[in-house]
Amino acid sequence: MGEVKHILLAKFKDGISQQQIDDLIKGYANLVNHIEPMKSFKWGKDVSIENLHQGFTHVFESTFETVEGIATYISHPVHVEFATRFLDHLDKVLVVDFKPTAVDP
Amino acid sequence: MGEVKHILLAKFKDGISQQQIDDLIKGYANLVNHIEPMKSFKWGKDVSIENLHQGFTHVFESTFETVEGIATYISHPVHVEFATRFLDHLDKVLVVDFKPTAVDP
Repeated sequence: MGEVKHILLAKFKDGISQQQIDDLIKGYANLVNHIEPMKSFKWGKDVSIENLHQGFTHVFESTFETVEGIATYISHPVHVEFATRFLDHLDKVLVVDFKPTAVDP
Repeated sequence: MGEVKHILLAKFKDGISQQQIDDLIKGYANLVNHIEPMKSFKWGKDVSIENLHQGFTHVFESTFETVEGIATYISHPVHVEFATRFLDHLDKVLVVDFKPTAVDP
């Protein structure tokens, strides 16, 4: 089966405080406790040095067991409510999902 | 310490064949064998359904032990040679690096 990763890149709007950002990250993490197919959540600030980040400053990585699980997550009322609040604070957002696959040597 | 993830999003140019894409992915994976700080490599096609992928079709995820390791990787001659060839086949590219961090409940 293998896990599926849901990667969201974000740039918060100018004028959003660090406290607001911290609260939004906690709110995002809290989705794990409410939405069964969401198995884990991690995040980090972009620290890349190649200048190919196109202005994105934060990375959010969730894992799911199936792509169907991501569809369930997206339409879950707790996610819908959080996403509306979260997106309202973002200047830019990009989302990709993928099944991490190794390459045979 | 904790690992650092290097995420590259790509869209290949129109007209690139599947064989060329497969060869480039093998070339990317092969960097692990030549560049010591690069610890692992995985990839996957974007399967997201939210239409927030901004045209990116492939996700490449490498792991490093430190951000300094990523700098070493970027300037490594084997990476420089591969990156020149790889980027020549891309229509779009985006790179972010982050330390995956859990959120205390």
